[in-house]
This record gives sequence, C-alpha cells and structure tokens, in this order.
Amino acid sequence: VSLASLGERGLLSRIFKEFSGQRHPTLVLGPGDDAAVSRLAPGKVLVSTHDDQVEGTHFLRKGLDFKRLGQRLWRVNLSDLAAMGAVEPIGAIVTAGFPANVPSRWALDFLKGIAEDARRFKTPVLGGNLAKSKNLFFGMTLLGQAKKKNLVLRSGAKAGDLIAGIGPLGQAPALPEPQLKAGQILGESGLATSLIDNSDGLSASCAWLARESGVAFELGSVPKGAERGEDYGLIFTVSPRNWSRLKTLLPGMYLLGYMKRGRAEDSGFDHFKP
Amino acid sequence: VSLASLGERGLLSRIFKEFSGQRHPTLVLGPGDDAAVSRLAPGKVLVSTHDDQVEGTHFLRKGLDFKRLGQRLWRVNLSDLAAMGAVEPIGAIVTAGFPANVPSRWALDFLKGIAEDARRFKTPVLGGNLAKSKNLFFGMTLLGQAKKKNLVLRSGAKAGDLIAGIGPLGQAPALPEPQLKAGQILGESGLATSLIDNSDGLSASCAWLARESGVAFELGSVPKGAERGEDYGLIFTVSPRNWSRLKTLLPGMYLLGYMKRGRAEDSGFDHFKP
Repeated sequence: VSLASLGERGLLSRIFKEFSGQRHPTLVLGPGDDAAVSRLAPGKVLVSTHDDQVEGTHFLRKGLDFKRLGQRLWRVNLSDLAAMGAVEPIGAIVTAGFPANVPSRWALDFLKGIAEDARRFKTPVLGGNLAKSKNLFFGMTLLGQAKKKNLVLRSGAKAGDLIAGIGPLGQAPALPEPQLKAGQILGESGLATSLIDNSDGLSASCAWLARESGVAFELGSVPKGAERGEDYGLIFTVSPRNWSRLKTLLPGMYLLGYMKRGRAEDSGFDHFKP
Repeated sequence: VSLASLGERGLLSRIFKEFSGQRHPTLVLGPGDDAAVSRLAPGKVLVSTHDDQVEGTHFLRKGLDFKRLGQRLWRVNLSDLAAMGAVEPIGAIVTAGFPANVPSRWALDFLKGIAEDARRFKTPVLGGNLAKSKNLFFGMTLLGQAKKKNLVLRSGAKAGDLIAGIGPLGQAPALPEPQLKAGQILGESGLATSLIDNSDGLSASCAWLARESGVAFELGSVPKGAERGEDYGLIFTVSPRNWSRLKTLLPGMYLLGYMKRGRAEDSGFDHFKP
C-alpha cells in the first residue's frame, strides 16, 4: 500500500494515536494543534538543538531500515544535549519528507522508531511536520531543560587543561548510544571546562573547543580511525588538578591530549567540499 | 562562486557573524555551541511549532527568490504561533539543505531573508543545521512563550458559536503577514473559544476546529477561492454574546459561519494524495 493511498490524514491519525497518551512532567499540549505547549521546571533554562538525516548524504534509500533511522534521529540529537552538560530532554519536534509513491510501510516504520525511542528516552514527541518531497529527509528539533550552572560550553578550556573522551571513538555505529549519563556527571560535577560531542571526528572536535576557548591543542596517540570517524562520544577538557576527582565519577574517561597557548588550526571535515 | 568553494565553514562563519550580536531578553546562548540556551519569563509556558518549505512541493528552483523564501519560513511559522493566541516568539531554529554545486549566492540570499525577518520580528535565531542535499529543503522550528491562560486551542468551540476570520482569505501571498497582533488580542481578551490558522483552506480549517471541539460547522457564503486557497489569516470561534465586544477589539474580523451540534466532515486537502 502506497503512502498516497494511506494519505496524509491516515498517517496523521496514526501519529496522533501513537502520541496521544504521552505523559511527562513538562508536557502541557502534544501533537494536534497549531503548536505544542510545555512547562519548564522553575528556574531551569531551555536548551534546543536540531539535526537532520538526508537521503544521499546520511543514508541511501536502498535497503534502508526506517525504524532505525527514526531512532538514529533521536540519538544524534540527544548526543547534542549531552554535549551541553546536565540537560534533561523535554520534547522532540519531528519532521519527515516522503515522496507520495513510496510504500506506506516506510513512514510507519519510521514512526515506530520515533515512538520506541520516545519511550526509551522518556521524552514526549511534541509535534512536527509532514512534507511531500522527492528526496527523503528527516529532521528533529530536540528541547531540553537544565540548571544554567550545570551547562558546559565549548568555550571554557584553558591552556594546560587535559583533553579527555568518554564513549566510543572513531566508530560510526548504526545506532549510537547518546552519552546522557556522562553529560549529567560532567555538568553536575562542575569539573569539565569545555565539552562537545565528537560528531565530525576528533581533530575537528578538539579544534572547535580550542578555537572557541582561544587556545591551541595537542593530541597524543589516538585510536586508529578516530581522526575522521563520526561517532557520538563526548570530548571534554578538565584541569589536571581535577582529573582524578572526575575520573572517580566517570571511570570510563580516557586521556586524548591537552590544551596549550596558541591559535587552533582548523582541520575538520566540510560537508560541502568534495 | 559555488557553495562547495565557499564551504560549510565559510557559510557557517557568515552565519555566526550575522547572528553573533543578537539581543533578546530570553536569549542566553545563540548559535555556535552544541545547542542554544534560552530563559523563559517566570510563569510562562513554552510554545513550539515547525514548518518546512520543500523543493518541488512548496517551490520550484527556477527563478526562486531565496531571500523571500527565508522570510516565508518565518511567516508560516509565526502564523502558527499567532494561531495559539497571545504568544511572544523567543527564537527560531533554522535548517537548510543545499546541493554542493549550486551558487553560494542562494545560501547567502536565504541567510539574508532569515536575518532580515529576525530583525523585523525581533526574534533571535538560536541555531539550526546545514545539510548537503540533492533537493533543496528549508525548515524552521519556532519557539515562543505565553501565559497559559492566554492560549486558545482548536478544541474549545461550542455548538452555537460563530465562526469568524481575520486577515486575508483565499489568497496565497508570496510573503504572508502573520496575524500576531490579532492572535494577541484573541488570546488576551479570553473571548475566542477556538483558533486555527487557515493554512489548508477554509473548509479544512473549520473541519479541524469542529472535529477537535466535537461539533459540526456550517459556512455562509464565503469569498470566491477561499475554499481551497492557502493563506495565513486566522479562523476562530466566538459566542454570539461576545461578538460585538470582540469586534470592538478586532474591527477587521468578519463572519464566516457557525458551529452546530453534530459530527464534522473532513473535506480538506491531503498533501500525499494526487
């Protein structure tokens, strides 16, 4: 059965049914109106991020597992929240572009992936958009809340700080595991001076932290393939005097290099360059 | 000069430069980190919506005015906030998909449109995403804040309520003017029982309100072309006893029909059906 014969209305009614029973302390109004409504906990700030998955760039249509793609969308966005520190997700806005003449199964499998991870990560789907599109594309804006003091930006590294990582490095797992727990520890401990998720490769991540912090960086010997590989570990900096205290809280962390005086060189991947 | 030679880094540095000096009472951290940070006014709820503009569905590449497209993205999303009542926009998350081999001018013009309307509507750009994509696509998640009691949902209409409109009807202007002021009046007055923006045509809008409110609707004679035409006026309901009071506050409003007991029939446009 094609998406055209299920129709936008048919698909929307499946979507509304899927997400009508959601409960979350922050959820006031979910999908179905002109906009969604959430209530943040008193004193918390709103944290927002967005990522897309586009046919031909992030995946190919042939043999695609649409359920997994829906889950992947959650995970790349959750990884960005984790990279801000101790952030609690409060809702996702999901957008999908499909041609009309594709099997409706594709959209329903994508929906299944979105719904399954919404439950897994205990985060409501607030709304989104369906568009007819020649090329497949999927996007998610993920919203979270945090105490401002528990956020860790890219810009706080000092010369002399050690560069550390947590989570897989130099792998591109089909279904990355966002480092939410590590982000929480890094944010709540107050011991990390800068933090980023490693989505463009290790050199690019370190260059970001260094540039934003006004320092340069030096990497030690790093796992093979980590230089360019996309993954969803976290890269962060910590003062040498706080290393062992942080290591107690985050036993899986490992040393990658250090920050030094100077000017960071840009060595990262560019999506628009051949 | 092609987008590939400007590069993602080149484009990003233009974007960061454009949006680095933004000021807004709610803005804590704008573009450039893993996520953006906003602070809502005490006691206000978060209102979020998303809309896309996709090549082949919403526009054709040939002769496209990219600046205007960037502005259009603001306006269709602002219209959704207006359709929730008295909502104050607090930030936009913008996403764009471009092929690498197109003129960089396209992306820079789009950026100009986004930046110009960000100033016009006094709303910061919080962040977003750039993706390489065969087909052009553009999306915006728009975030706003409101007092919960000043929101007007789709679901509050009662049998006997009058159906009214404000703003253009049955036109599809290239650059719609979102009815933010009308939304504010409708929300703050407490006189509208339901509210929607007329983005799928008048029958579809009334059917939404009726369905969500558990009533049926009857339209009077309406302007030619209003039945299917996409526009960004607001459609709302009001008890007959409050009509003249609301009309004093909103002199441009006009009568379209009324709500009655019964079950709404679905007569709207379906994006996936031929």
